[in-house]
Amino acid sequence: MSYKIVLIRHGESEWNLKNLFTGWSDPDLSETGHKEAKLGGQLLKKDGFTFDIAYTSFLKRAIHTCNHVLEEMELEWIPVVKNWRLNERHYGALQGLNKSETAAKYGEDQVKIWRRSFDITPPALEADDPRNPQKEAKYANEDPKILPLTESLKITIDRVVPYWENVIKKDVAAGKKVLIAAHGNSLRALVKYLDNISDDEITGLNIPTGVPLVYTLDDNFKPIEHHYLGDQDAINAKINAVKNQGAKK
Amino acid sequence: MSYKIVLIRHGESEWNLKNLFTGWSDPDLSETGHKEAKLGGQLLKKDGFTFDIAYTSFLKRAIHTCNHVLEEMELEWIPVVKNWRLNERHYGALQGLNKSETAAKYGEDQVKIWRRSFDITPPALEADDPRNPQKEAKYANEDPKILPLTESLKITIDRVVPYWENVIKKDVAAGKKVLIAAHGNSLRALVKYLDNISDDEITGLNIPTGVPLVYTLDDNFKPIEHHYLGDQDAINAKINAVKNQGAKK
Repeated sequence: MSYKIVLIRHGESEWNLKNLFTGWSDPDLSETGHKEAKLGGQLLKKDGFTFDIAYTSFLKRAIHTCNHVLEEMELEWIPVVKNWRLNERHYGALQGLNKSETAAKYGEDQVKIWRRSFDITPPALEADDPRNPQKEAKYANEDPKILPLTESLKITIDRVVPYWENVIKKDVAAGKKVLIAAHGNSLRALVKYLDNISDDEITGLNIPTGVPLVYTLDDNFKPIEHHYLGDQDAINAKINAVKNQGAKK
Repeated sequence: MSYKIVLIRHGESEWNLKNLFTGWSDPDLSETGHKEAKLGGQLLKKDGFTFDIAYTSFLKRAIHTCNHVLEEMELEWIPVVKNWRLNERHYGALQGLNKSETAAKYGEDQVKIWRRSFDITPPALEADDPRNPQKEAKYANEDPKILPLTESLKITIDRVVPYWENVIKKDVAAGKKVLIAAHGNSLRALVKYLDNISDDEITGLNIPTGVPLVYTLDDNFKPIEHHYLGDQDAINAKINAVKNQGAKK
């Protein structure tokens, strides 16, 4: 018995284009990002994939990616479950700031630490900051105590993995074919857990945008194999492009 | 104690433009239809509406209408529940046929009967017809015995009203603000039930496309008031436009 799941990171967002820290901010996909997501759906369709249910975050760049994939696959009628636990890592007070300007102000090394360390958080939002999730309608039904003001990758893992274990995995175990359309760090959290990647190694792992990542899991949900769909050279170029963000320019 | 619900009929579809009978066929919105749906969302936003949950059908013209409305309202993160019981009336063997050609072949009177009678069904699909819902993946989890090969408005009511009573109404009763994005006949079914409209009268009631229809219900879920949002002259023009479909031309 084995299971297949497909992960897809949202396409380029309008704030990727502007080189802003995004986190739980909610910009739409850029024109390129819309195209990337549609292409991801076309690749899945061409290879004969289908889904019974899709999971995504509370953020429109992931929701739109999910919608595009399902539209290309003629699967828009399937249930789509949205949960903030699949959100991007919360970037604290850096959200909305320009990555290059932040590098010039705090130094490239500091920005690299915030972006790439496993357990160091960016500066937290003040409680009265309008960006505090507790002030947003979409998080009003959540326990305010569990809503972050900043997150490290470690903290992100601590909310993604229980959601996988307690919710998504149950659908997989029931034989449902599952799509997860989410973000660089929420997917990295899941990949780290599934593949048992070390804390050091995970921060160097880059998941390209808009490319379906197919995992085959054994009956204990341990990966047997994983691969990206599509042209492997183009995928490698995408992986390297992500690495080069956050330089001073 | 009173409740508010909002109904919206999908905007113009590509098959409205081609003057084809649609039913459970699944064309997308036309360019005009996309605009109508966005405008509906803008009207709701302008008037301060919000929603906790949305219901729609298995058909993309309704799903896309729902998505557009929620996008305009910055509410894409709310749960969207899709169910075939909110589908358009099944148009049987007429699905995909041109309305004017069908009128020329069978006579305008016969087409009017199929379109406007309360309990007469269009000719049924044969079981081996590729349009039989039993052959479609999206209905594979349903009991084949309840999937129609044709429907009258009466039969449509018989599957819409239980879905309202057993599912949607419970959310309304729990205090959730509900949006229902659906079709001419599935919404007519609901309106007939809520407003206790006679079998004769309901066939003359036209719900305009893309216009939010706001119902205020008392604590027994009986309507206190209903109205359309937006410019009333434009709405009346839309209502009359629907009446004139299906003439020979």
